[in-house]
Amino acid sequence: MNSWTIFLRRLSTSVSSSSSIRHPSLKRSPLYSTLTDKDVTFFEKLLPKRIVTDYDDCLPYNVDWIKTCHGQSKLVLRPKTVQEISDILRYCNERKLAVCPQGGNTGLSGGSVPVFDEIVLSLSLLNRIHDFNQNSAVLTTESGCVLQTLEKYVEQFGHTIPLDLGAKGSCHIGGNVATNAGGLRVVRYGPLRANILGLEIVLADGTILDCLTQLRKDNTGYDLKQHFIGSEGTLGIITQVSILCPPKMSSVGLGFFSCETFEDVLKVLRLARHKLGETLSAIEFMDNTSLKLSMRYLKKDSGPIKESPFYVIIETMSTSSEHCKNMMELFSTKALEDGCITDGTLAQDLNQYSELWALRESISNGLVSDGYVFKYDFSLGLKHMYELVEITRKLMEPLKDVRNVTGFGHVGDGNLHLNVTTKEYSQTVKDVLEPFLYEWVSKQRGSISAEHGLGLHKAKYLGLGKSLHALDIMRNIKTLFDPNLILNPYKLFPYK
Amino acid sequence: MNSWTIFLRRLSTSVSSSSSIRHPSLKRSPLYSTLTDKDVTFFEKLLPKRIVTDYDDCLPYNVDWIKTCHGQSKLVLRPKTVQEISDILRYCNERKLAVCPQGGNTGLSGGSVPVFDEIVLSLSLLNRIHDFNQNSAVLTTESGCVLQTLEKYVEQFGHTIPLDLGAKGSCHIGGNVATNAGGLRVVRYGPLRANILGLEIVLADGTILDCLTQLRKDNTGYDLKQHFIGSEGTLGIITQVSILCPPKMSSVGLGFFSCETFEDVLKVLRLARHKLGETLSAIEFMDNTSLKLSMRYLKKDSGPIKESPFYVIIETMSTSSEHCKNMMELFSTKALEDGCITDGTLAQDLNQYSELWALRESISNGLVSDGYVFKYDFSLGLKHMYELVEITRKLMEPLKDVRNVTGFGHVGDGNLHLNVTTKEYSQTVKDVLEPFLYEWVSKQRGSISAEHGLGLHKAKYLGLGKSLHALDIMRNIKTLFDPNLILNPYKLFPYK
Repeated sequence: MNSWTIFLRRLSTSVSSSSSIRHPSLKRSPLYSTLTDKDVTFFEKLLPKRIVTDYDDCLPYNVDWIKTCHGQSKLVLRPKTVQEISDILRYCNERKLAVCPQGGNTGLSGGSVPVFDEIVLSLSLLNRIHDFNQNSAVLTTESGCVLQTLEKYVEQFGHTIPLDLGAKGSCHIGGNVATNAGGLRVVRYGPLRANILGLEIVLADGTILDCLTQLRKDNTGYDLKQHFIGSEGTLGIITQVSILCPPKMSSVGLGFFSCETFEDVLKVLRLARHKLGETLSAIEFMDNTSLKLSMRYLKKDSGPIKESPFYVIIETMSTSSEHCKNMMELFSTKALEDGCITDGTLAQDLNQYSELWALRESISNGLVSDGYVFKYDFSLGLKHMYELVEITRKLMEPLKDVRNVTGFGHVGDGNLHLNVTTKEYSQTVKDVLEPFLYEWVSKQRGSISAEHGLGLHKAKYLGLGKSLHALDIMRNIKTLFDPNLILNPYKLFPYK
Repeated sequence: MNSWTIFLRRLSTSVSSSSSIRHPSLKRSPLYSTLTDKDVTFFEKLLPKRIVTDYDDCLPYNVDWIKTCHGQSKLVLRPKTVQEISDILRYCNERKLAVCPQGGNTGLSGGSVPVFDEIVLSLSLLNRIHDFNQNSAVLTTESGCVLQTLEKYVEQFGHTIPLDLGAKGSCHIGGNVATNAGGLRVVRYGPLRANILGLEIVLADGTILDCLTQLRKDNTGYDLKQHFIGSEGTLGIITQVSILCPPKMSSVGLGFFSCETFEDVLKVLRLARHKLGETLSAIEFMDNTSLKLSMRYLKKDSGPIKESPFYVIIETMSTSSEHCKNMMELFSTKALEDGCITDGTLAQDLNQYSELWALRESISNGLVSDGYVFKYDFSLGLKHMYELVEITRKLMEPLKDVRNVTGFGHVGDGNLHLNVTTKEYSQTVKDVLEPFLYEWVSKQRGSISAEHGLGLHKAKYLGLGKSLHALDIMRNIKTLFDPNLILNPYKLFPYK
């Protein structure tokens, strides 16, 4: 038993009822069979030396990385080919064995780990890169490849992956597609959905559905691959992906600005769109508390610019470094003149660029080091975006366990990450926050999960802001693709 | 009877059996009821003065604009509100009356006109623009608005519509969404699908499905609106659309280049991606025959540059005119040095910009003025793209009726428009072209309809390159949304 296993075992004791704390009414569904020795023998034969049954070895597959869930799976399968996945699912479907597909296990909504004894279907060995076509700029790869590996691969051809997020060192492209991952560069490249040109999927009954084209345009019948993008593993297992990879720009620019009010943040956003035009590649905001937590984590005493209630980070990209520089200078001069920023600094080289980005990217770690984190991921009309942070702060004021309430996120996409930290998990705090926040957001026609998906934690709120008819359609689609409901149960759909 | 009606009536005689020439085996489905006086009375009451029953007045709704179809509808409905559409569909669904939704009627695949006596549901009076949100850059509008009207509307805020196509003066945004329209700027803005943030849809049974969010990110359950994008009116009627509108760039650049070989065209494409980077907004190619037809239509004697087998048009956009100019000059110098272009000209002002674009945009008119046009719209791996034009030319050589075989299109997206012109419609030519071309394209894993949809003309080829399972899923989805199959029958799905 290595130290990682010891750590996890310790963890498993401490969080053993974590899922049940967060979801006390959840009970194993009687729909599903229980794993037998005969089943294990079947899988052992199908995947020699690529099944995991030992309790300790199963542990990393049972716990999510923010440690909010702890499943009880006794079997992890590690297929290497699509045919093996097809054989696995055909068997599970016939036997009514529930399956939890798992990519890099970096999800934040409890979607990537089993809830009870679902078989874990790990995609990590399905990790061959097939081809990068330099004419069409399309990468074709198996779904278990790590995002950063793909990024490096296409960089040698002068291209990049149109997706960038904190977990890129461990998340899988298949998981990214299954959750329609967002991240930092949606402003530039659009949603992941827009860049996925083809998918190969194994359906619940083992059918291999080949939608793996490399075409940018194809209007022949219904675009079936769309079903699987963002379906969180509930409709099929994504096994191959073809993805459009834009050319990598040779120059980047970064500006870090302070704003007195959130209204000023929005003015900066509008100005940046028009002044920076085609070079704008990211526009992020954070409040002062977010920056302080990030600085504490990075052990920095002083911020890059004057302390202020709000900060905006703007990134530009271009094939011309001069243009990148000129545009950012023109923009910041105009923003100062207009009074929507009060201070700012522009990265002079790649070191400064990385240092300034680190302040944004370390907020999550800063939050985790502050205690237990109640994480929320909302899409909101921009005028309501920060209002919700203020309302939450007021709500939390009387509660002594609360440490910090912070707001930051992808302001260019209307995506707010609202976080509340407490010394440790607190049911009182949770009961004040939920369902209040979800209902408030739905009332404003926002989204209660902008980019993290519903997973386990938010499944019961699926119906918020959706009509009964819409829910019926979703259930019908689920049943169409997965009639025995074996794929990723207890996730996405409300379940008691 | 005005001159337009006289023209159409004449046309209706000349093309009266056009649909049956192209689709001789097609017979009216016995599934559908026949319109009665009682039905007409119901609709008259529901839509006072907004129903059309006169034969002549129905004619423009029965004929598509390239005159390949002539339906026999005796009733056109012109609702103004979503509630009216809901009432219409509920009635039609109960009565099993088939319905053909119609936007701007600019489709090229026969999808927008009735085949037999389907009721035409015209969306042209559902044309109110609701709102443009300057923070989020999202336009919300009814679906019957003309694309160009919307473009002008958002231009006053410094934004543009992320879609540009020849028919923009008459096509509707609803029709654009229903066919997932492509066009000239997919290189820049991605597919229309990527920019559609919300839809309101009326389902076949009259249910109003509200997916009209304005959010760029929303991962809460299955993204139901995706079903309707590109479904060609077979799953529901799109009544409202919210669409992300990028900032309009203040400067444009245009280069018109000649290439000796198609391999050189591809070199230009790769070079343009890397050298022009973020400024690249369109990259189109045409062969010499295409340019000649366009010039003849425009009554121009000499081309803009040295005559050559291939031409490439490259457009750039930027907020800085200097940058636009510099980048294009750098690019063209490098392309000349590399030998992938042999001649070129850069637009010096907006007049020249428009004149050069006109050469590309007039190819379709040039073709129409050359006789009957067999139009094809393929997506192909780039290395196969022009090969198909050459194969077709060879195939057509022995046929005396053939005038020209041309290839042009959106090379940046792998989208080839292949056209064969003949003196008049020729069954012999058609029999050589079809299904040969469709099968050849499918064999290369291309798409037989990149951006035009399947409509009526290509419905029978839906299955090419698709598995039986995929077709089953499509049929199940159709039945899920439209159990009585009343919406746009005979389209998209093969039917005898």
